[in-house]
Amino acid sequence: MEKYFDRLWPILRSITGEGVRETHRILSEIIPLEHMEIPSGTEVLDWTVPDEWVVREAYVITPEKRKILDVKENNLHLLNYSIGFRGKVSREELESHLYSLPENPTAIPYVTSYYQPRWGFCISHRERERLPQGEYEVVVDCEHKKGSMTLSQCVLPGKTRNEVLISAYTCHPSLANNELCGPLIAAFLYRRLTALKERKLTYRFFFGPETIGAIAQLDQDGDRLKRDLLAGYVLTCIGTNAPLQYKRSRLGTSLADRAAELVLKTHAKAPVRTLDFFPTGSNERQYCSQGFNLPVGSLFRTRYDEYPEYHTSLDNREFVSFTAMEETVDVCFQILQALELNRRYRAKHTRGEPCFSKHGLKPSFEDLKGLQWLNSLSDGENDLIVISKLSGHSLPHLANLATQCVHAGLLEPVE
Amino acid sequence: MEKYFDRLWPILRSITGEGVRETHRILSEIIPLEHMEIPSGTEVLDWTVPDEWVVREAYVITPEKRKILDVKENNLHLLNYSIGFRGKVSREELESHLYSLPENPTAIPYVTSYYQPRWGFCISHRERERLPQGEYEVVVDCEHKKGSMTLSQCVLPGKTRNEVLISAYTCHPSLANNELCGPLIAAFLYRRLTALKERKLTYRFFFGPETIGAIAQLDQDGDRLKRDLLAGYVLTCIGTNAPLQYKRSRLGTSLADRAAELVLKTHAKAPVRTLDFFPTGSNERQYCSQGFNLPVGSLFRTRYDEYPEYHTSLDNREFVSFTAMEETVDVCFQILQALELNRRYRAKHTRGEPCFSKHGLKPSFEDLKGLQWLNSLSDGENDLIVISKLSGHSLPHLANLATQCVHAGLLEPVE
Amino acid sequence: MEKYFDRLWPILRSITGEGVRETHRILSEIIPLEHMEIPSGTEVLDWTVPDEWVVREAYVITPEKRKILDVKENNLHLLNYSIGFRGKVSREELESHLYSLPENPTAIPYVTSYYQPRWGFCISHRERERLPQGEYEVVVDCEHKKGSMTLSQCVLPGKTRNEVLISAYTCHPSLANNELCGPLIAAFLYRRLTALKERKLTYRFFFGPETIGAIAQLDQDGDRLKRDLLAGYVLTCIGTNAPLQYKRSRLGTSLADRAAELVLKTHAKAPVRTLDFFPTGSNERQYCSQGFNLPVGSLFRTRYDEYPEYHTSLDNREFVSFTAMEETVDVCFQILQALELNRRYRAKHTRGEPCFSKHGLKPSFEDLKGLQWLNSLSDGENDLIVISKLSGHSLPHLANLATQCVHAGLLEPVE
Repeated sequence: MEKYFDRLWPILRSITGEGVRETHRILSEIIPLEHMEIPSGTEVLDWTVPDEWVVREAYVITPEKRKILDVKENNLHLLNYSIGFRGKVSREELESHLYSLPENPTAIPYVTSYYQPRWGFCISHRERERLPQGEYEVVVDCEHKKGSMTLSQCVLPGKTRNEVLISAYTCHPSLANNELCGPLIAAFLYRRLTALKERKLTYRFFFGPETIGAIAQLDQDGDRLKRDLLAGYVLTCIGTNAPLQYKRSRLGTSLADRAAELVLKTHAKAPVRTLDFFPTGSNERQYCSQGFNLPVGSLFRTRYDEYPEYHTSLDNREFVSFTAMEETVDVCFQILQALELNRRYRAKHTRGEPCFSKHGLKPSFEDLKGLQWLNSLSDGENDLIVISKLSGHSLPHLANLATQCVHAGLLEPVE
Repeated sequence: MEKYFDRLWPILRSITGEGVRETHRILSEIIPLEHMEIPSGTEVLDWTVPDEWVVREAYVITPEKRKILDVKENNLHLLNYSIGFRGKVSREELESHLYSLPENPTAIPYVTSYYQPRWGFCISHRERERLPQGEYEVVVDCEHKKGSMTLSQCVLPGKTRNEVLISAYTCHPSLANNELCGPLIAAFLYRRLTALKERKLTYRFFFGPETIGAIAQLDQDGDRLKRDLLAGYVLTCIGTNAPLQYKRSRLGTSLADRAAELVLKTHAKAPVRTLDFFPTGSNERQYCSQGFNLPVGSLFRTRYDEYPEYHTSLDNREFVSFTAMEETVDVCFQILQALELNRRYRAKHTRGEPCFSKHGLKPSFEDLKGLQWLNSLSDGENDLIVISKLSGHSLPHLANLATQCVHAGLLEPVE
Repeated sequence: MEKYFDRLWPILRSITGEGVRETHRILSEIIPLEHMEIPSGTEVLDWTVPDEWVVREAYVITPEKRKILDVKENNLHLLNYSIGFRGKVSREELESHLYSLPENPTAIPYVTSYYQPRWGFCISHRERERLPQGEYEVVVDCEHKKGSMTLSQCVLPGKTRNEVLISAYTCHPSLANNELCGPLIAAFLYRRLTALKERKLTYRFFFGPETIGAIAQLDQDGDRLKRDLLAGYVLTCIGTNAPLQYKRSRLGTSLADRAAELVLKTHAKAPVRTLDFFPTGSNERQYCSQGFNLPVGSLFRTRYDEYPEYHTSLDNREFVSFTAMEETVDVCFQILQALELNRRYRAKHTRGEPCFSKHGLKPSFEDLKGLQWLNSLSDGENDLIVISKLSGHSLPHLANLATQCVHAGLLEPVE
């Protein structure tokens, strides 16, 4: 994972462009992605796919002829989606095109201007304060041209068309927690899934720019998702070793929510922070918009609006933990397994408990309790996730006992 | 406010009589009241309007010829609604007509006897213990005669007949927290409202005796209120500088409740105490009786059953705070503004977020969040109060953004 | 109660057999029980009534010719429901038939083998470790023969067929908290009830073995109970002086639940622990099975799975408290009285409060509050238990005031 991180880190990404394509090509080495190119100008829901951004070079020459703010040194130096410019400007004029953070003086901020055409550079406040008076030469050799926006996905088919969506975005250049860890975890999660002998569910992995990418996906596939999607998760800000958190779908008690909360609670050392849906955040804003209202929640560790390194050059390799990322892959995999194992049953002996020994079951004391929970609560409505949550018995343990009960003629699966 | 307090304080009020009329006349200098006189003997719901009480003088002459318990010195000395009596009594007989508080020996209690005819005096326990043996001369020159009960109201019309009720009572003589501060705050709240350029809602201010006053109001106007009343508030025990509290209407989640709780929460330094409806208390007992079940809550600071000075001479000018009363006027005004600003909208772009920039909106980062909340939650059911509560964005801020969205064609108001 | 405890303690009980019959005969001295014998082999719901267990003698002779593990010394020594065996075995072979608790070395465990035929002895781990090598003579003079299972009940009729069930089990030999205190408390509760002048409700006391006893009861009487049962309580693990706890019926807000929670809360010195239904535990598992779903909760003090003495010789006379048992009888009796007193009323004056004095009521200040609660909340749905819970007024106090209101024409009872 570290190796891929280091290859993907220096690429200049934005919502469109060659950097995105290169990123998706590298991710394809881990997960077999199908690429889609949506032409600039295409109407997608209320939005329009923008022109493609081409950056050749961008830097500034100081009055002392030092080259600074070179995009080749740090992607963040160039205002993302900047228009082109070439000329000589005074320090005063340059100032009106600079972005820095006085309260965080060593950080280069990450600033975008997707929908207002302007040029600019991002600079640490410390460096900004040291800029001398004089004439600066500015080179922003960029262009916005008709092209396309790149989306990629991979579908791993299961026995049913019931679908699980894993969604990550790929539009932030050289930002680690938000965002590079998200697509990496998604890609490695795919690997874990392919190791499963059989899958009941179909899995869809989606990569594209934040917001407009999900908008385009929903434009094309939203109505079908509304029919088939069982659960989905947006991975965002998920690279640190802070405890995993879960933000519920707008539905609030969707299967996505119940599975994630059960697994997080099972694995947590401390009380898990789960949040009700709120319409600011990442792509769950689109998936959970009123008109789609899909069962999509969001997993994260250090949330976008809760860390000072957010959207700065300090959100870097040192800020994240590869150990935690491995653990995240594992927890995500267990959430998917919970979805795989989850089922509803209907008990056949509902007047009093069944006499388990009569049906060939000779349970241990602990298994007996699990059998009592299963046979008492299986009414065709309660699923294993509910029973696991109420009983404290693990979902795999209950699933195993339920299979025994089906063979013994005590439970019948409900579909 | 202090000036009016001092003019109203010495007046001898009861549920009927000249003192009430004088009180309403003085309040009319602040708020233009329309007076109603309901004749004694009128049946109002399950009740009957009582005779009018006329007090000319009331005092006791001690064996040493000292005049004590003079109603001219303190209104509380005379049992409220006392019948007349004139005669010489022994100390023992006098004792059976005296009311005092052994556990609060310096306080003169406030005692009423509206529905049992008897005469009596209220006295501090300390003074009572010092009464010598001997013959006392008692003068209670009172009378109950056919007359009327005085109710007053003021209606401030708005663009719609949707109505807000502010209700305060005027039957307690020389008691500050419970009650004089209530009608004063109501009257000064009226002044704040008249300063508004335009009002969507109609406001009704009601003043009358507690219980029977509200009963008579409901008898006359209850069915219309059931149709038009959007929200109402009873102001009681609201003169101190203890934190404001809110008691919900019986409905529990009425607009009255939601507006008051939002505003109190916004302005509070500490967690706000809000109470579910209970059928003891003040006039909300009548407004929220089963048969009317109006959306009327109650605002107070130091509640009737939670302070030892309640219904004694210690509930006086020193016990209350004019600064707090000004603040209460302000908080009440903000509750009314919340009702004015509150609206429901329906979002037009519900499949994904709208592209705000495309619709001419160039929001700041904070405004963008407000726009996301508004457009995501506006489904024709959630109103601005709900969205403000969930988002933490202030109601005026959201109302402002909503207006921008209406102009931009993103939201449409729902009525 | 102590006297009966001491007579019942030494009897060898199991799910069937003469020990159970003797137990029920002794209980009949306190409560007039009707006995039912269900023949071995009878199908009851999913179960079959087992053969009757006859124990003549059971012991082991050590290589040094000491008689040990004699069932006459402690009922727990013999594996409950053991099959017969007579022979000489090595220490190694004997070991495979011994049950002890290494983590609780002074306790003789209580072990049963109802549905797997085997012989065995239970022994303290300390004694087990001291067993010498050599040949042991084993005598288990037992037999399983066609016979019957004994159930007993007592019905105390009331004015209506609405029924309350008190259920306790009688299959554990020489175990005090779990179980002997349960049937004793049930029997003495019967005595308290007979002292009542009149009873609205019919009371049924049921005694039988755990699980299969309730299964047989439901097989015979379950459908009628579904119609008539208003509330029921399983008494289990209820002999210590730990605080009383309540486990709700599966219905969760049944009358049984609301009455028990109200009374426990009223009598508790500390917050009462109440638990949602779970399908492990005692006979409530059967009563609350999906197909019956009866309003039956469970009362206990030191729960089955929460004390190390559970199912060992340490759950004995010293472990329980007769004072606490008397108190439990009292609390149970108050729960039954709550069920007797509980009623729904409908207020006649619902538009505003009634004028109580007009209807001949001259309430004290405290009674006035009770009247306000009753008249405000009595809508034909809220019962006195609800009003008591919300108001804090005791149920007997409210019932008394409600009767006054009925006489005054303010409330009418609802059936």
